[in-house]
Amino acid sequence: MGVVIDGCPPQLEINQQEIQAELDRRRPGQSDLTTPRQEEDRVQILSGIFEGQTLGTPISLMVWNKDAKPESYAPFRDTFRPSHADYTYQAKYGIRNWMGGGRASARETIGRVAAGVLARKWLQQQCGVEIVAWVESVHDLRAHIDPDTVTRQQVDSNLVRCPDLELAEQMAERIRWAKDQGDSVGGVIGVVARAVPPGLGEPVFDKLEAELAKGLMSLPAVKGVEIGSGFAGTLLTGSQHNDPFEMREGRVRTLKNHSGGVQGGISNGENIVLRVAFKPTSTIFVAQQSVDSQGQNVVLEAQGRHDPCVLPRAVPIVEAMVALVLMDQALRQRAQNGTRTLPTM
Amino acid sequence: MGVVIDGCPPQLEINQQEIQAELDRRRPGQSDLTTPRQEEDRVQILSGIFEGQTLGTPISLMVWNKDAKPESYAPFRDTFRPSHADYTYQAKYGIRNWMGGGRASARETIGRVAAGVLARKWLQQQCGVEIVAWVESVHDLRAHIDPDTVTRQQVDSNLVRCPDLELAEQMAERIRWAKDQGDSVGGVIGVVARAVPPGLGEPVFDKLEAELAKGLMSLPAVKGVEIGSGFAGTLLTGSQHNDPFEMREGRVRTLKNHSGGVQGGISNGENIVLRVAFKPTSTIFVAQQSVDSQGQNVVLEAQGRHDPCVLPRAVPIVEAMVALVLMDQALRQRAQNGTRTLPTM
Amino acid sequence: MGVVIDGCPPQLEINQQEIQAELDRRRPGQSDLTTPRQEEDRVQILSGIFEGQTLGTPISLMVWNKDAKPESYAPFRDTFRPSHADYTYQAKYGIRNWMGGGRASARETIGRVAAGVLARKWLQQQCGVEIVAWVESVHDLRAHIDPDTVTRQQVDSNLVRCPDLELAEQMAERIRWAKDQGDSVGGVIGVVARAVPPGLGEPVFDKLEAELAKGLMSLPAVKGVEIGSGFAGTLLTGSQHNDPFEMREGRVRTLKNHSGGVQGGISNGENIVLRVAFKPTSTIFVAQQSVDSQGQNVVLEAQGRHDPCVLPRAVPIVEAMVALVLMDQALRQRAQNGTRTLPTM
Amino acid sequence: MGVVIDGCPPQLEINQQEIQAELDRRRPGQSDLTTPRQEEDRVQILSGIFEGQTLGTPISLMVWNKDAKPESYAPFRDTFRPSHADYTYQAKYGIRNWMGGGRASARETIGRVAAGVLARKWLQQQCGVEIVAWVESVHDLRAHIDPDTVTRQQVDSNLVRCPDLELAEQMAERIRWAKDQGDSVGGVIGVVARAVPPGLGEPVFDKLEAELAKGLMSLPAVKGVEIGSGFAGTLLTGSQHNDPFEMREGRVRTLKNHSGGVQGGISNGENIVLRVAFKPTSTIFVAQQSVDSQGQNVVLEAQGRHDPCVLPRAVPIVEAMVALVLMDQALRQRAQNGTRTLPTM
Repeated sequence: MGVVIDGCPPQLEINQQEIQAELDRRRPGQSDLTTPRQEEDRVQILSGIFEGQTLGTPISLMVWNKDAKPESYAPFRDTFRPSHADYTYQAKYGIRNWMGGGRASARETIGRVAAGVLARKWLQQQCGVEIVAWVESVHDLRAHIDPDTVTRQQVDSNLVRCPDLELAEQMAERIRWAKDQGDSVGGVIGVVARAVPPGLGEPVFDKLEAELAKGLMSLPAVKGVEIGSGFAGTLLTGSQHNDPFEMREGRVRTLKNHSGGVQGGISNGENIVLRVAFKPTSTIFVAQQSVDSQGQNVVLEAQGRHDPCVLPRAVPIVEAMVALVLMDQALRQRAQNGTRTLPTM
Repeated sequence: MGVVIDGCPPQLEINQQEIQAELDRRRPGQSDLTTPRQEEDRVQILSGIFEGQTLGTPISLMVWNKDAKPESYAPFRDTFRPSHADYTYQAKYGIRNWMGGGRASARETIGRVAAGVLARKWLQQQCGVEIVAWVESVHDLRAHIDPDTVTRQQVDSNLVRCPDLELAEQMAERIRWAKDQGDSVGGVIGVVARAVPPGLGEPVFDKLEAELAKGLMSLPAVKGVEIGSGFAGTLLTGSQHNDPFEMREGRVRTLKNHSGGVQGGISNGENIVLRVAFKPTSTIFVAQQSVDSQGQNVVLEAQGRHDPCVLPRAVPIVEAMVALVLMDQALRQRAQNGTRTLPTM
Repeated sequence: MGVVIDGCPPQLEINQQEIQAELDRRRPGQSDLTTPRQEEDRVQILSGIFEGQTLGTPISLMVWNKDAKPESYAPFRDTFRPSHADYTYQAKYGIRNWMGGGRASARETIGRVAAGVLARKWLQQQCGVEIVAWVESVHDLRAHIDPDTVTRQQVDSNLVRCPDLELAEQMAERIRWAKDQGDSVGGVIGVVARAVPPGLGEPVFDKLEAELAKGLMSLPAVKGVEIGSGFAGTLLTGSQHNDPFEMREGRVRTLKNHSGGVQGGISNGENIVLRVAFKPTSTIFVAQQSVDSQGQNVVLEAQGRHDPCVLPRAVPIVEAMVALVLMDQALRQRAQNGTRTLPTM
Repeated sequence: MGVVIDGCPPQLEINQQEIQAELDRRRPGQSDLTTPRQEEDRVQILSGIFEGQTLGTPISLMVWNKDAKPESYAPFRDTFRPSHADYTYQAKYGIRNWMGGGRASARETIGRVAAGVLARKWLQQQCGVEIVAWVESVHDLRAHIDPDTVTRQQVDSNLVRCPDLELAEQMAERIRWAKDQGDSVGGVIGVVARAVPPGLGEPVFDKLEAELAKGLMSLPAVKGVEIGSGFAGTLLTGSQHNDPFEMREGRVRTLKNHSGGVQGGISNGENIVLRVAFKPTSTIFVAQQSVDSQGQNVVLEAQGRHDPCVLPRAVPIVEAMVALVLMDQALRQRAQNGTRTLPTM
């Protein structure tokens, strides 16, 4: 896996350990809740960082696979796995590398997590932005987490990465239940970005929520994204939904946050709150109907290694994606408006 | 309102009437359910169309306002309307045109609808694509519509644009109820794109669902987007959720469509089905707490014209946005893969 | 003619007169050296400017044609004018608007000049940048102008816009000579940008000279671009060509400027000096061999209005293009590096 | 050195040897005319090619340095080499990797040459395009080469890569003369693209010659680019310069080619002919005045390895750059116009 990060400002202090620490939150084999595939995911810096600082030029990182087993993909050489990308890649390109998931593999998110480390650090240094994601639901078990106060420490306090410890235990049991049956479960991840300065996001097409939705919907297995009140907000009237303004500590603030920190496509300085729906993992070990590349109906009964639930490992991925979108918008804002709205930049 | 449409292939037959017809579905003053503002929204073609055909060069369209009342915005010169973009524009740019909603006004969607007419026609001619949107819910009134069979005729059979006539009547009542109180309601719009060829969408960052989510989340008032099973899909196991393949009429098809027509970010030839959450309109005539540009807390009691519910007029906007994203991806696909996967292109 | 200018920072003071003044330097009918076509080229501001300041949102400008004579293009409906874009547009699009030059008409440069006014003003305010272009040669008459000292006043002191008054008179005669024969002449325009801060331009593909070359080569009739020593620099040895550094007034400076103000694709703070070759105008009134759209060989003898030499009117166009490229790079630099290297931004 | 090639269509047959062969034309240490630095420049394919075919997904290639001597850059740690990018990188980023030329090193052109192999093969297969570059001048020695007939075999018949053998011998002597003095010489490279289909290039800003000029001006050491008649064309009248049309073998052709194969920014099917000026190499071993990072004037007397003339090695780089631009435009054309104008695509 390689990733090239272009556009990162120079003189950001960063080292291999900081990137590694976040890859470790994402890597397989962390616990019995994730795939038993053993990958150290050791990151190697090839370019763009010099004497502990970014150079302003593209940063190239590499993670070499250790525990790849291309032979285990042999059954899928001629058979399309249901709800995987085998068929669509074949349809699009007329060719595919069947010896792994290729670009459709969730393994590509290594690059996002690595890049996200730089984005998060830069945002933190420039404006004090803090991004925290957590597992909000697994299957039908749903936690109620306060986005204004939840900490990364709470999230990482258990294997599921749900800050509600009691529910986390039930979630872990649910995941093990799915694993025992060769089946899988999905869920919802919540994420908050705090201390985002007002002014990020561009009107009309590149609204902040649009960029965030694109980034999050581009993650493997995601089927839905909502911001602020989201789908539940459709049950309110305008007078219930609108967020009144007030002056607070010398700044324009809202009394509540149904807007989710974005108004008219532009951040308003309140917490940016999103929820992301992850479908149950497509890789399962239950017999499934499929077709092969000769157009014959077949039954697929796979064996192998899989994540019975991607949610715990998806937490750092969601955080990284939000950081990357916010940094991108902050750089756009700095180009157009200089440092007027971003005092510490 | 002006719009420049760049990238439309040449020799597409189009006339002013076709564009106008779709603008008429979007225009204000259609019925007592929409804003009483009277705008004909007459479209004028300035460039890019010659003797009834596109030239392949940018198409410039203009719609001149007739019933604009800048003076009615005077109260908002110094006061930020809650959940509008007044404050965020001021924060971002340090200046704003207070004599109207500017680029944050839903009036900008005229451009999207006009452009969408060309996209829909092109998609229809190239691959027979058919796009239909409908009002699925208003406030807590929710219809159950079959995306595989719903027609535009059914949608346009009533003022609400909900194909369930009985529910449409209740929805109309609910909207009038909100209007009478100077309040507003939101809801959900469903949309389907049928006969989309397999192969549209690009791996990793520009997945088809990511581009669709971005496009739809960039529409005014949208707070959530889901594709296929969406948030409800998180309640299923993988074996319930996966879409088995079978051969049908010589093509690879799925038995069901939890994927919503996209797998691994690429269309699989099944119907693309999305749901879009619209918050209740921010413009209401109930007293609200706000602040002014001098940083004083004030109470805002606006009078004027507003849409008590944007859903009926949002139906053509959602259709247009889906068409624009699909056409964009079809052109990318044609660049990279020629006509192999798009037989009629 | 319409132009949309996207990406201009907010709160730049600008008015219609400033834009008009520069369009007047470009407009036809200025003197007997240019086309007798009479166009006032009155600019109308449609959006993006409010109470004398840019809003930060797209600026839309319109110039309505007054003296267009589409009927005069009737002879070219079926015949391709040599060295015009008639044939290539037909080949590319399979359709063309024969009632004028369309997008290949030099009339499109109105948009560039208008946009250039904002770019030049912004650059001037931010960093004191000053851009001056001049006619360096017409046909084989070549002036030797010092880019470090030439002023716009000198340039505009005569109809040809060549600061060498004696040579300017000869050039004017040469242009009248070409005009009398229904023929045309070309020449070279020189341009300098002074006080450009170090640091503009991006390594590898988007080097500053590459962006400038693209911008200038995209102007109608341009066949060559050189920076600094240019083609003549190939006659020197490295020891003659290299620009030694020295400290001067506390800054790193070069002793001479064969580099033309750019090293390794990035501005070094010295004057940016370019030369641009314009071919003789393609529109001439001498009989020419051509073919028609039925593939028959024909002889084309056109009558009408033309510029016997585009150089005098091209001076503001070249200045505008350089300003646009520099501003674009300055905004990129501000995004990535903040205000560190652009002290006054 | 790594390169990621994105956007290459799938199912293009390519192997490591084809890429290597072209890198060998570019690699250092080919002869006594180039730097004695010994690099095999072995290319390694990391992704995007499977069983001898492109996958349609990004192609990642790597070339590991063998003969890098970072210690030889120690003298430049604190001293800016004249006409190199040391100072401008420092000014732009506030930091630079002094242990080599970094992104400003001509070593980055390995990536362009490798990518160019795919572009040239694809263009050849799709439309029979043939691209040949040659050394036209070294210092003041200038050859006159016919772009319509010159072959790669002729070019590669001697170390200088000038198809005029007699002049090539003189050029070799001139280069050795410069080398003996620790000095360097520059020159001009000519390049032709034959059989380019009509229709490539986009009006206004992305004209074909603009994209070519950008690509070529982005190469290290290039100071000027001209197409067709170029600067010499300014000495002609319009009636001399215009290229009359005639029907030939059933196609619209021009009688001569002052346009250089491009009219109105779009290819017209004639040979695309360009000339590119390369300054003398900046790395020389003659004493030069400079400044150090403490702002002290110093004298720099470097020892080491250098190319006394980059021209022979620049030939494959120029060919690659032209191929990359043409392929990019061909893909744009295919997106917008399908296969109408590109019959074999």
